[in-house]
Amino acid sequence: MDTYELRPIGWVESPLRERESAPCQGDEGAPPAWLVLDAAMAPGLRDLAVGDEVILLTWLHRARRDELSTHPRGDVRRPQSGVFSTRSPDRPNPIGLHIVQITEIDGTRIRVRHLEALDQTPIVDIKPLLEARSER
Amino acid sequence: MDTYELRPIGWVESPLRERESAPCQGDEGAPPAWLVLDAAMAPGLRDLAVGDEVILLTWLHRARRDELSTHPRGDVRRPQSGVFSTRSPDRPNPIGLHIVQITEIDGTRIRVRHLEALDQTPIVDIKPLLEARSER
Repeated sequence: MDTYELRPIGWVESPLRERESAPCQGDEGAPPAWLVLDAAMAPGLRDLAVGDEVILLTWLHRARRDELSTHPRGDVRRPQSGVFSTRSPDRPNPIGLHIVQITEIDGTRIRVRHLEALDQTPIVDIKPLLEARSER
Repeated sequence: MDTYELRPIGWVESPLRERESAPCQGDEGAPPAWLVLDAAMAPGLRDLAVGDEVILLTWLHRARRDELSTHPRGDVRRPQSGVFSTRSPDRPNPIGLHIVQITEIDGTRIRVRHLEALDQTPIVDIKPLLEARSER
């Protein structure tokens, strides 16, 4: 099957530096972070606003791509699950999916609340949360 | 910035063949479809069950990657928006995000209800929907 090239549009600036210190989910005590977007992306970002909740897609660049089973939440006391039933970062295509709220916008730097992604994680997309029927 | 290689784990089998005939969102009359996963992915799929609602990530292989502004829902009467405020398939990394319900499982073929992705769209990931605090 063909492969496809992901080209990051920016990266995460966060105090989180190690997987061991990162919470499993953003609502489990993750710190605020900056999304530092490439300046060339400015026209695509212009309608984002403080207060918006968005879906952030990242590339979890420190993940293992050869895992198909994992202990949920990294807890070895729990039985292994197939990775497609978990949110483990270790999976064939380690795309991270995060719901974040925008708290500040400074040019193409976007501040968000509660992001569990590590510092320097590449950003691949930002999408609006759809409330019922909305934009495409 | 580095680039990353997406390796599809399967593809969509759907009666939808043309972008013009595809609804914008799954809940706008999209037909059922099969997710045909690579046989090597079986261990990762083993805990998925009929009735589960999952997040399906696809690579929208017919999209344009050079668009940063678009008319929402392709409606030229509406003013253009930055693509990161829309769900347009045309975007720098055209990853499709679909919430689908599993209605049948036959080995590594998974039947889902209401999928707006076109036939032969590559599949890149499947994740559980998180209800409040759940698995990682």
